[in-house]
Amino acid sequence: MAACPIDNKSIRPIIYAAGKCRMIDQRRLPTEEVWLEYDNYTEVAEAIRSMVVRGAPAIGVAAAFGAWFGARDIASESSAEFMRQFEEVCAHLAATRPTAVNLFWALERMKTFARANLDRSVMELKIGLEYEALAIAEEDERLNRTLGKNGARLIADGARVLTHCNAGALATGGYGTALGVLRAAVEAGKKISVVADETRPFMQGARLTAWELQKDNIPVTLICDNMAGYLMSKGEIDSVIVGADRIAANGDVANKIGTYTLAVLAKEHKIPFYVAAPLSTIDMSLGDGSLIPIEERDEQEVTHVGGVQLAPTGVAVRNPAFDVTPARLISAIITEAKVVEGDFSQGLAALFAG
Amino acid sequence: MAACPIDNKSIRPIIYAAGKCRMIDQRRLPTEEVWLEYDNYTEVAEAIRSMVVRGAPAIGVAAAFGAWFGARDIASESSAEFMRQFEEVCAHLAATRPTAVNLFWALERMKTFARANLDRSVMELKIGLEYEALAIAEEDERLNRTLGKNGARLIADGARVLTHCNAGALATGGYGTALGVLRAAVEAGKKISVVADETRPFMQGARLTAWELQKDNIPVTLICDNMAGYLMSKGEIDSVIVGADRIAANGDVANKIGTYTLAVLAKEHKIPFYVAAPLSTIDMSLGDGSLIPIEERDEQEVTHVGGVQLAPTGVAVRNPAFDVTPARLISAIITEAKVVEGDFSQGLAALFAG
Repeated sequence: MAACPIDNKSIRPIIYAAGKCRMIDQRRLPTEEVWLEYDNYTEVAEAIRSMVVRGAPAIGVAAAFGAWFGARDIASESSAEFMRQFEEVCAHLAATRPTAVNLFWALERMKTFARANLDRSVMELKIGLEYEALAIAEEDERLNRTLGKNGARLIADGARVLTHCNAGALATGGYGTALGVLRAAVEAGKKISVVADETRPFMQGARLTAWELQKDNIPVTLICDNMAGYLMSKGEIDSVIVGADRIAANGDVANKIGTYTLAVLAKEHKIPFYVAAPLSTIDMSLGDGSLIPIEERDEQEVTHVGGVQLAPTGVAVRNPAFDVTPARLISAIITEAKVVEGDFSQGLAALFAG
Repeated sequence: MAACPIDNKSIRPIIYAAGKCRMIDQRRLPTEEVWLEYDNYTEVAEAIRSMVVRGAPAIGVAAAFGAWFGARDIASESSAEFMRQFEEVCAHLAATRPTAVNLFWALERMKTFARANLDRSVMELKIGLEYEALAIAEEDERLNRTLGKNGARLIADGARVLTHCNAGALATGGYGTALGVLRAAVEAGKKISVVADETRPFMQGARLTAWELQKDNIPVTLICDNMAGYLMSKGEIDSVIVGADRIAANGDVANKIGTYTLAVLAKEHKIPFYVAAPLSTIDMSLGDGSLIPIEERDEQEVTHVGGVQLAPTGVAVRNPAFDVTPARLISAIITEAKVVEGDFSQGLAALFAG
């Protein structure tokens, strides 16, 4: 991977062209806009692991391109041997981050395509997988626009909406999920303002959400995570909207650490709490959220910020990257198919029954 | 003020000797232990404002020494003129931070002493005020030890206790309030472990609480503020204990931003929530917490950490330094006089009725 210049008027974190994929280095935003260029699967895996790219749907898109790079570089002309090596490529990409299900969903979709076409030549398989990766990326932005329109009716004109982490264009193929709903509300003529949790330890709210909304001229106010309760107690928050990394069949939602706390606070203040996520985030194989694996990340993310040491050397640290919000605390789950409210077990099952 | 070496085996943030007061620069902990030397009231005021010294009781102690420096330097031999100028000194020190009541309490105590002794010579007044400042400092550590013993019975052997900000030795004349209770529990032979919220934006938990507890060999685990709900949901927290910056007559508690959120989470998880504070933190003149002024501090505390920019230039920011936890969410208020439980209005009034 190498740094490269790019023109990117509407915000997209991953741009694919001419057999290479360019990703904006999200670790360096908002002070630097650096694009990195990728054309092999091990570097894409490392980009996912180290959070050059993050956000459940964007991880899925990146993994799809990574899988395609891996497929392209397989030398065998035997489709059986190709499939064996392609499974290894996908396993390597899958081993990067455990919580966001879109990663596994995208890899599964790539493998399903390959398996269904094993009667074709390896050359044809490779061409097909490139198209499949492109389709995953393009569909993601398109469905976020639909999801946004579906959710926009839940956001009142004049609403002051709290969001956590970054469920924006940067977290997806484009447009965003939670921020897609807010963009759609603005496009529908509503005047809204956003309060962005900074989202420790990785600061996606401060670095990414504030940056995205500023670029789109949507009013945004940054707070520390521990200030949300205060603003709610003062009547300064009308609703909460977040994305998701994985949604269980009963509607329990794994999302960035701190989401659960916001949901408890929203309940205490009788404020609606919305989750916006594509169908690819819903994992119908898991009955409830207790089955979702929660990634614990490196201690240094907590003890250091921007290279500055903030805690005494050797202190013990916990760093769970996600938490699980039980379905009972969620007012609605907004998808590209429909807005699910009420009984989530029934509602989510119905989405996949069609 | 100048940097100076010091030997400080048990942790005290303010050390007075030979007409000068030395304060550890709490902004530079835990990576640097730098002591600054003060001998005039305007520099002490600036130390309070800029948070060289912080923590409600420690601010009170610093203000008392600041008032004494101001008194010492008054040139007039007329006690009426002395009092006029001394009131100005105290007003200057009072204008530094609005929320912690101990600041005003300590200055009022100094003024009350002066007013009660205006029949003495200015020389005698000055000597008396030096003793009064020393008494405020020494009493604070002593009463924290009593407070700690009173509260220790609430901490079970084996308890995993969550704390927020730093209500430790560094926040007081010595020993600490919330951390004083934990120290007393340890001294009583209980094995406990502490989970410390890092406490954005000023990071008192990461920088000060972790440092203090490490020094005392009390097991401590550092988390980001938004992880407390996750640990509670996993059953990993047995109780919460915090300090206070001001307590209203009905038991509402102003404390470091994020405290209210912890209290809501504690209620949701049926975990006891304790507040530890000396009587000087209780402001019987305020009926409830809505009357406590909440300081909003500089935006840069949120947008930058350790000089590193984390948010886009020009983003709007809120930075309330405190929030108010309603009495209904508090299990007990631990003071040096007794542990108040149940009806706080009655219980607190009784403390001052004696």
